Amino acid sequence: MTIRTLIWHEHRHEQTNELVAKLYPDGMHGALKNAYKGDKDFVVDHALLDDDAEHGLSQKRLDETDVLVWWGHAAHGDVKDAIVERVAKRVWEGMGLIVLHSGHYSKIFKKLMGTPCSLKWREAGEKERVWIINPNHPIAAGLPEMIEIENEEMYGEPFSIPEPLETVMISHFEGGEVFRSGVTYRRGAGNIFYFRPGHEAYTAYHNPLVLKVIKNATRWAYNPAKPWVGIHPSPNVPHDKAPNPLEVKGPTLHTAGEEGFR
Amino acid sequence: MTIRTLIWHEHRHEQTNELVAKLYPDGMHGALKNAYKGDKDFVVDHALLDDDAEHGLSQKRLDETDVLVWWGHAAHGDVKDAIVERVAKRVWEGMGLIVLHSGHYSKIFKKLMGTPCSLKWREAGEKERVWIINPNHPIAAGLPEMIEIENEEMYGEPFSIPEPLETVMISHFEGGEVFRSGVTYRRGAGNIFYFRPGHEAYTAYHNPLVLKVIKNATRWAYNPAKPWVGIHPSPNVPHDKAPNPLEVKGPTLHTAGEEGFR
Amino acid sequence: MTIRTLIWHEHRHEQTNELVAKLYPDGMHGALKNAYKGDKDFVVDHALLDDDAEHGLSQKRLDETDVLVWWGHAAHGDVKDAIVERVAKRVWEGMGLIVLHSGHYSKIFKKLMGTPCSLKWREAGEKERVWIINPNHPIAAGLPEMIEIENEEMYGEPFSIPEPLETVMISHFEGGEVFRSGVTYRRGAGNIFYFRPGHEAYTAYHNPLVLKVIKNATRWAYNPAKPWVGIHPSPNVPHDKAPNPLEVKGPTLHTAGEEGFR
Amino acid sequence: MTIRTLIWHEHRHEQTNELVAKLYPDGMHGALKNAYKGDKDFVVDHALLDDDAEHGLSQKRLDETDVLVWWGHAAHGDVKDAIVERVAKRVWEGMGLIVLHSGHYSKIFKKLMGTPCSLKWREAGEKERVWIINPNHPIAAGLPEMIEIENEEMYGEPFSIPEPLETVMISHFEGGEVFRSGVTYRRGAGNIFYFRPGHEAYTAYHNPLVLKVIKNATRWAYNPAKPWVGIHPSPNVPHDKAPNPLEVKGPTLHTAGEEGFR
Repeated sequence: MTIRTLIWHEHRHEQTNELVAKLYPDGMHGALKNAYKGDKDFVVDHALLDDDAEHGLSQKRLDETDVLVWWGHAAHGDVKDAIVERVAKRVWEGMGLIVLHSGHYSKIFKKLMGTPCSLKWREAGEKERVWIINPNHPIAAGLPEMIEIENEEMYGEPFSIPEPLETVMISHFEGGEVFRSGVTYRRGAGNIFYFRPGHEAYTAYHNPLVLKVIKNATRWAYNPAKPWVGIHPSPNVPHDKAPNPLEVKGPTLHTAGEEGFR
Repeated sequence: MTIRTLIWHEHRHEQTNELVAKLYPDGMHGALKNAYKGDKDFVVDHALLDDDAEHGLSQKRLDETDVLVWWGHAAHGDVKDAIVERVAKRVWEGMGLIVLHSGHYSKIFKKLMGTPCSLKWREAGEKERVWIINPNHPIAAGLPEMIEIENEEMYGEPFSIPEPLETVMISHFEGGEVFRSGVTYRRGAGNIFYFRPGHEAYTAYHNPLVLKVIKNATRWAYNPAKPWVGIHPSPNVPHDKAPNPLEVKGPTLHTAGEEGFR
Repeated sequence: MTIRTLIWHEHRHEQTNELVAKLYPDGMHGALKNAYKGDKDFVVDHALLDDDAEHGLSQKRLDETDVLVWWGHAAHGDVKDAIVERVAKRVWEGMGLIVLHSGHYSKIFKKLMGTPCSLKWREAGEKERVWIINPNHPIAAGLPEMIEIENEEMYGEPFSIPEPLETVMISHFEGGEVFRSGVTYRRGAGNIFYFRPGHEAYTAYHNPLVLKVIKNATRWAYNPAKPWVGIHPSPNVPHDKAPNPLEVKGPTLHTAGEEGFR
Repeated sequence: MTIRTLIWHEHRHEQTNELVAKLYPDGMHGALKNAYKGDKDFVVDHALLDDDAEHGLSQKRLDETDVLVWWGHAAHGDVKDAIVERVAKRVWEGMGLIVLHSGHYSKIFKKLMGTPCSLKWREAGEKERVWIINPNHPIAAGLPEMIEIENEEMYGEPFSIPEPLETVMISHFEGGEVFRSGVTYRRGAGNIFYFRPGHEAYTAYHNPLVLKVIKNATRWAYNPAKPWVGIHPSPNVPHDKAPNPLEVKGPTLHTAGEEGFR
């Protein structure tokens, strides 16, 4: 088993903001790669928004990706709709997706959730405590009961997402708010995990426990099944090929073999 | 309590197909209205795809709608994206949505689900049995254990929807397939119910039990709370207005009072 | 509509502890009754552990109860198993159940959840903030975004309950922990709500917002459907009474009309 | 990775009924073992109701079991409550559990579900079609879209279980009924799968596809995490050991270090 992991990063802040450039000299994607360092179960690469006209996400590349990790913030609007659609299709077929922090507002996450994915926020460098509420979940493997992050941006409820399949983590903020920090979903054959920490002005992605969550989530999201390509169309089952073959009893609008409406 | 119910109908088949015109002389929306006849809890109107440039779904009209019932099939692609976005926003704020039959492939349903919503189908006039598997659910009020429909189009699993909040009904088809025929979701403050029966070439919407499900679902989907208008933005909570007021401890990327990125 | 509400209370602390007696001179059940005061939708009564040999929960009384509110703590073990079984059956038939605070460890809650329902706790009179994360849920009607309780016992995650149907509230504690404070379930036809606040050494049940949650939850839990008495047995459907009548094709272990094994 | 799998079987029918004895000359447990034959990922053993006073389920044996497979029918009542409690505890700690067919009425399944787990049934040797509705789920690995079983007992909805975490399979019966045949749950750290086929009077457990489901489910249910032994108690967190150390502000009912009530 080798999990082909692709870290997608907006990579704009590092080029426009001195602080971010200093905190993440190899880019946030560089720091995220350290999550998998030395673990032979993973082959890791990255793609950046400005790599090329397809944001580094050609069909071929997505087809060769098992799990996609997504960080975006200031430039969600610059991601082309056609690429978002392409990524969604691969998720439905079985590619895992880890959405990080400000990625809650990315086009891809909003598309897969079907909700606004809004929240409250505050940038005050306050303490965050990420509590593991589902301790034997694969995403929690090897973690303590709580991850303490000295300085983070606050995200507060209500977080307008659909009811999660599983809530794995809830954060406690110094300023008084709470947030569902680690939640799972399945869309088609694709496993999705949203994970909260990672504001660009702080150092969450240098924190080994944060990186461990991301690696665990990548392993959890990996679906070894063959891509579910049959998820896209709605095929007709002719009456004479039904499990119980049938005579057509009523009028029909569609002629035999015709495609359905989309 | 009066539930302002709006039946949205594509209303194209009735004008191009003699059979449908004959089965539904008042349009399918006319037949659907009978679901609420004589019940003072409901005020019912309809809107049609070709009513006007907004498909009869102006902002004002949606703001005055508690529950929207949706039937579309051949012309999903003619519904404008801006109107779909507008409907989605009202659902998130709390408008209920009942999606019928071929509406599984409507833009609004696919947007709210975040999945392809594909299925198998066959048009053979076969028998459908809709089993109530959650008998004391409000949507099942007054129903027998099973609704038998003599002639219907078949829809078969896999139905590529997210795991439902509740599965209320499952259909058994003469030809051998099964289908989750009645499923609930919540997206934001909006209650959503998908209900399978209703192919335009048969008479499901003249069946009193089918109409009872639709009326029950309308009542269930009604959310009397004030619209959740706060669901759309992601507001900043300044550090000095936090529940526990804070000193800013770290660097900030955003200046005070600034809007977040979208 | 009148919701017949029964408040079940252990009522031991008030008799053995001066502090509790002073905080709740009419008993905690007396304070809880104030939640419904002046609202004609509710008829409210109480039953106490030591009322009689059946803890005030005769079959007749349960049959005449729409929603049961449960507070217990030190004497969970004194509740007879036969009575717990009786209450569970009524929940499955459709009686709503609101479990309060230390009721997480009651026999009835553990039986309906199928998990240990364990948690962490601390009795330090610290501040609790109950955040409403599902603001347009019926249980949140008329509430602010957060309920602040000056002094409460802490309950901390992991709370070993099954994944809730809906998570409505999450608490933030001064000492640093978080807790899913308001969660919903359905078991059979019965709606269940667990609500965290209410330690006997503090005054939560004199807080109008806490009482409002309890009243909202009672309304939400009310299932107007006729009791689902058919939930208890597993009836045989003879081959000649199947929807599609069948000839018996294989050997049988059971003779015709025989009851199944339990 | 080796998954220590224990097949628990009631093993009464084989001794009292000639037909069952003939269909399953090595016992149903013998047939079930074939599911894992030749696969080095599994070490498989069995335990029988009448093995010893603990039904072959000593604490030691359970502690050395990763996944327990359960078949029972006529003798559910003979399983001792203390053993059921012991099994439940191991499930909560992380042992997987596969419940087969008539095991829906076993004490352990009802305990973990918190519902009656009732259904309808008919013994007519009719055809069952088990549809895979979640095709890329690990439990569906390598399966066709539908498993056809020529002769089976019918189980019909409503199946009074809690809303599943995931519905993986739905059955279509010749006589007209439907049934949720493959459903998942998590209770504590334990993954649970209920799988319908397997009436003792027919040959389902000689069907390679049925056995493949059971093997897949065993793999899926396996939780490699260390047992969650902390799930059983509710520990106190002293005020001076809180994440944010606190002064005790209010009165206390418990003295320092005291155990909570159970």
